[in-house]
This record gives sequence, C-alpha cells and structure tokens, in this order.
Amino acid sequence: MVGGGQLARMTHQAGIALGVDFRVLAGTPADSAARVAGDVYLGDDRGRADLLAFAKGCDVLTFDHEHVPQPVLRELAEAGAVLRPGPDALRHAQDKLVMRTRLTELGAPCPRWREVAELGHVTDFAARTGWPVVLKAARGGYDGKGVWVVDDAAEAAAVVERAAQEGVPLLVEEKVAFRRELAVQVARSPYGQVAAYPVVETVQRDGICHEVVAPAPGLSEERAVAAQQLAIELAAALDVVGMLAVELFETDTGIVVNELAMRPHNSGHWTIDGACTSQFEQHLRAVLDLPLGSPRTVAPYTVMANLLGGDDPHVFNRYIHVMARDPELKIHFYGKEVRPGRKIGHVTVVGDDPADLLERARNAAAYLKGDPQ
Amino acid sequence: MVGGGQLARMTHQAGIALGVDFRVLAGTPADSAARVAGDVYLGDDRGRADLLAFAKGCDVLTFDHEHVPQPVLRELAEAGAVLRPGPDALRHAQDKLVMRTRLTELGAPCPRWREVAELGHVTDFAARTGWPVVLKAARGGYDGKGVWVVDDAAEAAAVVERAAQEGVPLLVEEKVAFRRELAVQVARSPYGQVAAYPVVETVQRDGICHEVVAPAPGLSEERAVAAQQLAIELAAALDVVGMLAVELFETDTGIVVNELAMRPHNSGHWTIDGACTSQFEQHLRAVLDLPLGSPRTVAPYTVMANLLGGDDPHVFNRYIHVMARDPELKIHFYGKEVRPGRKIGHVTVVGDDPADLLERARNAAAYLKGDPQ
Repeated sequence: MVGGGQLARMTHQAGIALGVDFRVLAGTPADSAARVAGDVYLGDDRGRADLLAFAKGCDVLTFDHEHVPQPVLRELAEAGAVLRPGPDALRHAQDKLVMRTRLTELGAPCPRWREVAELGHVTDFAARTGWPVVLKAARGGYDGKGVWVVDDAAEAAAVVERAAQEGVPLLVEEKVAFRRELAVQVARSPYGQVAAYPVVETVQRDGICHEVVAPAPGLSEERAVAAQQLAIELAAALDVVGMLAVELFETDTGIVVNELAMRPHNSGHWTIDGACTSQFEQHLRAVLDLPLGSPRTVAPYTVMANLLGGDDPHVFNRYIHVMARDPELKIHFYGKEVRPGRKIGHVTVVGDDPADLLERARNAAAYLKGDPQ
Repeated sequence: MVGGGQLARMTHQAGIALGVDFRVLAGTPADSAARVAGDVYLGDDRGRADLLAFAKGCDVLTFDHEHVPQPVLRELAEAGAVLRPGPDALRHAQDKLVMRTRLTELGAPCPRWREVAELGHVTDFAARTGWPVVLKAARGGYDGKGVWVVDDAAEAAAVVERAAQEGVPLLVEEKVAFRRELAVQVARSPYGQVAAYPVVETVQRDGICHEVVAPAPGLSEERAVAAQQLAIELAAALDVVGMLAVELFETDTGIVVNELAMRPHNSGHWTIDGACTSQFEQHLRAVLDLPLGSPRTVAPYTVMANLLGGDDPHVFNRYIHVMARDPELKIHFYGKEVRPGRKIGHVTVVGDDPADLLERARNAAAYLKGDPQ
C-alpha cells in the first residue's frame, strides 16, 4: 500500500487476519501505518523513483491516498506493476473536471457545473444559478484549500486570479441546497464482483467529517437502493478495483454526487465494528482478486465519530474515563501526535437507537479532545 | 508481550486500535507475531538474559505462553519489571500440582487427584477410583507429552519409571466421565474489575481443540452462572491480571476444573468476531490497568473452528473457494508455515443456529486443510 496514513494502518490490521504479506510505503517511521506494520519501506509516496523501487517487491499496488501523479502511475503500469485501482480509474478521484465530465456523460446526477477559464465563466454561471456558487480546484489547490464558497463577483475574482497565478485549474458548481450529506460505498473486484454497503449519513462541520450514522436514518428504501445502484454503476463504468466511496447530497427531490474516493474512506470506518466485513478487509479482498465478503451490518445502527486533537496532547490520560463510562465503545487510535483539529482516531458504537449512539460517540470524542460536554 | 506466537499476533492486532505501543519478544523473524508487528525484539523468550534486556524497554510485561521459569519471573520482578499476571499467579498455570493443591484448598470442584512419588500411589488411587486413571506431568513432560491415560498397573509403571528418569513430577487424576468439555474466560484488572464471557463448549479431538461453540448450547442458566462465578472467584483468589481461561468438564452432576490458562486462549478466539470486546483487547486493557470492555456477544451463537495444516502447504490456493462459498466466514491466518496437524489459523461464523454454523465452520476448515467433506 502506497502511503502510511491511518487507512494503511487499518488495512494492515485487516491484512493480519487474512494472512496477507502487507508492505507499506511510508514517508517516515512515525507515520500512522509505519508505527505498527512489520514491513515498512521508507520513501516518498508520491515520487517516481521510490514508487518504482517499492513496486518491484509487490504483487499488487494499492493506495491510501490519491496523490500519485498520473505520469508516475502510468510509468509504474508500464514497468509491470499491477495497480488497483488503475490509472484510468484513479483519474476520476484525482481531477474533479475529469470526474464531472465523465459523470455527466454517464447521466449520473450532479450539481450544475462548468469549467472556469476566466471570471466571466463564473459570473455567467451565477447569473443562471444565483449566488453563492462553489469554486473548486480540479486538482491540488492552494493555501491548503481546494473549495471556496463565493458570494459575489468580487470574491470570485480573487479566487480566479489566485488560481491562475498558481496554475490551478478551476470549476464552478451550484451550491446545492441539501437536506443532509450521504455516502455510499461499494467494493469491486477485477473479476467484476461488487458488494454494496448501506447508505450512511455523514455529518460535516467546517469541511471535516465529524460523524457517520449507518444506515442513514429515515432514508427511503427507494432512495437507498438508487444510491447503491448508482455507486455500483459508477464502479463498473470507471473500472474501479477496490473500495469506491460516493459522497452525495440529499436534496428535496433526490441525490446528487459530490465527490468520489477510490480507497477505504472515512465514511466507512464504522464497518470495522458494524459490518461483517470491514471496508479495509474488503479493499484487500478486492485488490487481491479474492471473493468479496458480506457487507451485512451486525446491528440496526452504528455510529462513528472522529476523534480530533485538542490542546492537551496527553490523550491517553483521558482514556480511562471514556472506557469506564461506556464499556461498549470501540476506540481506534491512529498513533498520531496530537495537534488541535487533527484527526487522531475514531470511536464507534453499535445499537438500536441512533440518537443514543450519537450522544455516546459525541461525548467520547469531546472528552478525548479535552472538551467534555 | 513475551512470545511471538499467534496469541501475540492477535494481541498486536488489538493493540493497533488501542494505540498501544506493542513490543514482542520473538524467537525468530518468522514467528507468527514477528511477521506482522512493527516492534520486534529477537531473543530467547524463556531465557534470563534476553528477558531482562527486553523488560528494560517495557512498561508492562505480559505473556503469550506459560514457559518462563519461576526463578526468571522472580528475577524480572526484582529488577523492577511489572509482570501481569505476576509470578505467584502464573505458578498455577505452570504447575498442575500447585494448581490442584490450591483449587482443593479453595473448595473448587476438581477431579479426585493425588501427587505421585511412586507406583504404589497410582495403584492405591486406582483401587478407589477404578481404572483407567490419568497421569499428568505437573510441569514439562517428555516426548512432547504431558498426559497419559493408563489402563492398568503395568502401563502406569512405564510412565512412572520414565518420569522418574526424566525428573518429571507426576500427579494422578480420576478419568472424569464427562458429557462434554466447557470453558469459561474472565478478565481481571489490577484494580480488581472483572468481566466474564459466556461459557463455551469446546470440542477436542486427539487432545487438540477443534471447535468452540459460544455460548455452550443447552447449558442451564444455573450451571452457566456457577461456572462464571467459579472463574471470577479463582481469578480473584489467584490474583490473576489479564485473561484467565478455566477449562471444565461437564458431568451429569455439575462441573469440574480441568486446566487453567492465564493468557488469551484458544477457547476465546471466537470473541474477535463474536463479542463486543475481543479477548485480546480485553487482555491488553486488563494488563494496562484500563477499564474493561463489554464482553457482550454480537449474535446468538458464534462458532470457531481451528485450521489445521494438511499435506498441501499451498493453503492460499484454496482461499478463493472457501471465501466464495461463504461470504460471512471470518478467516484468521497466523502466518505460519503449513505442516500436517499444525494450528495455522481459525475461522469464525456468527448466527442463530449452532448446527448450521458448525457445519459451515467445519466445512471451511476441512477445505482449507485440503480435505473437503
């Protein structure tokens, strides 16, 4: 697996049970996965030379992020590396213009959008959809940001100008009036077998996923099935191998696609404790061309809350209280140094009542952050 | 953790989620745990010098086996190592004479037994209980054996003579006419908190555990509670810290204690997929003095079957069939070279009907052994 973050860490954990020889390409020994894996290759997980060297010792390459540039992916493939997912599929998770163009061709429900080459493209677009609109970097971004909600032409001009200076391609999308955000995950094997997980509700705050409720409470069976079918069709059309996450907006009239990810995804962390087969095991089964496992849930509801770092780095001092308060809580730490706002782990709890589960998961997350409610 | 076997491997897996810095003392890099852990210390996991050196870098020492000699355990404790469980507790899992003596003092139900210093002790004992009787090595054994069922004085004489030559202390026990074998596990923390798992049925063949059904089908509530209370009382009386497994015989009139183990145990592998808190996570919580997790089951029944090696070492070639046939099956491989009869992994399946689950688990185990039924 290319990349040493928490996705690789949890994939290693799943690989232990499968008896898979799991090697990780990590930047430093302190990376989340490098701290726990037995077979760690240190190097630049986006760099040509290190990736080519790493690939030589692997039967299959897969990824914990989408940051390997297309030319490097293609050179790896030409050198004989087996990439799952492959470069053609990964483009759709790397470049929002490629993704929107393809999804539109496929007739998948999208927000209205267009490519932005100059400010006039934004103002013309906003004249049809109304302000505010959403400007997105197709790839990369700047100042650590890739999405800007702009209220008027002046705000748009600032983004367009800066993006042009930085060479960042832009697109504009209507700001969807959504009821809530959903996500659906499917796994697909090279053989074409697919397995779909239940549609979940994701709760974002300040652009960060805070909570996931699985399945999404109150979602109609019809809409849930439509979302799963959409994800299955996209996985096949884009030739995804491994996990595909489709992030969705639910509106008054249906669903529209927000983003795609072709790897295990934060919206699926609940599956470790809430499904027969976790997304991490499923990803390994898929990329190794093994039959997929059952995505069946183990309880009526599972709630996952991300653990964000607070001001106090000594998170283990608060472990005892959280564990004592809720013996059913499942804690997953990523072995990361605590910094304010950084995702350092997640908690999961399963049961019958999503409101109760949400309260327990939120409470644990708040307590571990050092901010008891 | 001292010892690099599958128990350490699965404990490491649980430690990843807890964010515990887990170091393992393993004999070779090919050991089950050494193949997957990030922090491996190579050395003799029963030897004084290596254990003293290993202990220096650890906050807490725990064990995946009971083979560290008492003098070494005591020297480690004197050198400041925190041993959980401690030497006084571990003696009862290391020496069957110590165990039987103490259990008898505590009034725990045991088979009739006595220490054997000479053949006459066996023949006198058998005159009361009838033949056959069971001779056991209190510690160690010879020719890879520690238990001998003997039918008459001549057979007993051969064992007693050989044991005397080898310096192996013996005891004799009545051969219990049991209906079936049971096991019960409890965790106990240094603080004295305990958590009891359901009583399970264990199916042994040729002295090897083949299957576990959790909870034991048809066991009366009264007998189940009695077994759990017995295990809780023993854990407290023997000052166990970590997991305690009590292996039991169920007879027509009740239960008697067969063996004790003070570590995660084969009878508890089902908890990874069948309980809210696995025995491996629970062992870590206990030895780290963290609040214990809920031992609640996630389904009415869980069945575990051990995977034993067959003649064909290429077990992965058969993976695809087993996974395709039963997508709900959970496979756990130990990363061990396949040898006939060797425990190389286990499978688990959860559901409502123990007969159905047993059939599925047995089928997978037979298929992976290369012996489809």
